[in-house]
Amino acid sequence: MSAAVTISIDAMGGDAAPDMVVEGVRMAHERLPHVRYLMFGDASRIEPLLARFPEIRGVCTIHHTEESVSMEAKPSQVLRQGRKSSMWLAVEAVQKGEAAGIVSAGNTGALMAVSKFVLRMLPGIDRPAIAGMFPTVKGETLMLDLGANVDCNSNNLVEFAVMGEVYARAVLGLEKPSIGLLNVGSEDMKGNDAVKAAAAALRDSHLPISFYGFVEGNDICGGTVDVVVTDGFTGNIALKTAEGTVKLYSTFLKEGFQSSLLAKFGYLFARHAINKVKVRTDPRRYNGAMFLGLNGIAVKSHGGTDAFGFANAVGVAVELVTHGYNDRIRKEFDRLKPAEVSPSQLAAGTR
Amino acid sequence: MSAAVTISIDAMGGDAAPDMVVEGVRMAHERLPHVRYLMFGDASRIEPLLARFPEIRGVCTIHHTEESVSMEAKPSQVLRQGRKSSMWLAVEAVQKGEAAGIVSAGNTGALMAVSKFVLRMLPGIDRPAIAGMFPTVKGETLMLDLGANVDCNSNNLVEFAVMGEVYARAVLGLEKPSIGLLNVGSEDMKGNDAVKAAAAALRDSHLPISFYGFVEGNDICGGTVDVVVTDGFTGNIALKTAEGTVKLYSTFLKEGFQSSLLAKFGYLFARHAINKVKVRTDPRRYNGAMFLGLNGIAVKSHGGTDAFGFANAVGVAVELVTHGYNDRIRKEFDRLKPAEVSPSQLAAGTR
Repeated sequence: MSAAVTISIDAMGGDAAPDMVVEGVRMAHERLPHVRYLMFGDASRIEPLLARFPEIRGVCTIHHTEESVSMEAKPSQVLRQGRKSSMWLAVEAVQKGEAAGIVSAGNTGALMAVSKFVLRMLPGIDRPAIAGMFPTVKGETLMLDLGANVDCNSNNLVEFAVMGEVYARAVLGLEKPSIGLLNVGSEDMKGNDAVKAAAAALRDSHLPISFYGFVEGNDICGGTVDVVVTDGFTGNIALKTAEGTVKLYSTFLKEGFQSSLLAKFGYLFARHAINKVKVRTDPRRYNGAMFLGLNGIAVKSHGGTDAFGFANAVGVAVELVTHGYNDRIRKEFDRLKPAEVSPSQLAAGTR
Repeated sequence: MSAAVTISIDAMGGDAAPDMVVEGVRMAHERLPHVRYLMFGDASRIEPLLARFPEIRGVCTIHHTEESVSMEAKPSQVLRQGRKSSMWLAVEAVQKGEAAGIVSAGNTGALMAVSKFVLRMLPGIDRPAIAGMFPTVKGETLMLDLGANVDCNSNNLVEFAVMGEVYARAVLGLEKPSIGLLNVGSEDMKGNDAVKAAAAALRDSHLPISFYGFVEGNDICGGTVDVVVTDGFTGNIALKTAEGTVKLYSTFLKEGFQSSLLAKFGYLFARHAINKVKVRTDPRRYNGAMFLGLNGIAVKSHGGTDAFGFANAVGVAVELVTHGYNDRIRKEFDRLKPAEVSPSQLAAGTR
């Protein structure tokens, strides 16, 4: 039996909160019966929902909050005025050790700002990164940063590489994960200064990392490497471009099957195969973006997801907790800097 | 009847050159009988190919060259040593007025470097951009830059917006094309300094441009705007991510149809609909990346394409010539700077 894990939940975050959130917790409970939940939000709205799902009443503790963070709120505004919000208090539960991780489907920028402020960074890491899984022709790939940092220097990219590598080993269980740096070509001369310097650092460093070299946009879904490292501007646009392309393809497919009577007939027989593809590319399956590098586990669910997607985000947080991701990262970084040198400095050879 | 147009061809560029190139010209000839070709390359290899296609013998003139540019050559090396190559001489034919445009499936970096050096920029434009068409749920979208400039400032982005806008009006025939700036979110505060400054300039400027604002990765295939403007690093990665995602989806679909006997049976009926999707997302249909901003028409075909793809790239060059794209750009820029101010300065309000 798994040891009990407590996850704090921002019950008011997300387009369809709190209904979607509570139902998501119910779905997560089916798969993860050992997990307990601290639910932060409006008790008058959460109570009736829990009454509908008596099976999770025993694993949920409600912490009433009057306030919540809107999807439009600016991060700076939330930092100043949001200390009584469901999001803030849910994050604070992790900082206080009452919960092992927090999941929110709320405002991404606000969640990142509050998490950084309340949880602080892991020692030796300058910037947090948002990481997520992509489906590939070979299985799955981790990509980071998906949007936490629009400007990244080479040191940031090297840190992301280390954080991604540890995730692939600790959580995905890969023995020697390969790391690729996203670029516009595979040759050394290609790219901007940040990726060129980061590649040089990763190649020359004594970091125990299997650095593949540069990868291109098509390598993400191609599964060329286990971990794709990029800045948050490019990563966010690549993620959303892939999502948009899946939507385009499935729209074209639908139109194709509606274009003639024969095609409509064909759909009846093809439905099963097409549903398989839909399941494999379903963004809800990949819901749950991890904020890596923070001194505490924080996972962001897509704001527009449903209960199934939210349950997956809870699963992502539980995995990070269960595999002791942050302890692993701490140990790696301790090992890498015997003389108080940050791993990125070490990698850049400026020790 | 259309007026005669002459296009110069780098017959030695591309993975399967010159065979693929000559056959591509034959396919282009079927659709564009008024076009004549100057074919630069190894005559001993081109002659036998033309002998196989007597129908294009009369519209092709071979210019023998001993040298060609390899796919691995560095642009700087080609600039120093490539003056007798098929690529260089094909570009030079445009500069000399012997051809109205050049098409090559060769080394992208070298073609850009040679084109910039030989053709020079259009007056008032600082940097060329690579532009290409994307399929969308609503039709097609033009995106630029797809890789010419890995680092772009806000002035470059504003220039790309103008070049894209003129293309959409002059070649696509849109009356008031909408222009979007690719970013990680739609709010004003989102993004790096370059996109924020470019958005401010496009919003405040007196440029006769219909500026939509920021768009995100999913808006590319979503067809939210007619023209998507971005830097060459992000644009190249978005393009290749979309290509990789289409490949992923079609691989999953294939696997779905092979997963059971019923599914295999279903494929027989669904084949027609699926082929329609393949045709609509076929990268060969969108082959032909335009180098905009140069004082001469230059189009880059994908190096790994086939004759059908190359013929489309020829078609793209002919369209640019026929619609007098460069004259239109020249006029727009003249109109925009009555007092020797570049349009980007004008847009930035620094006049």
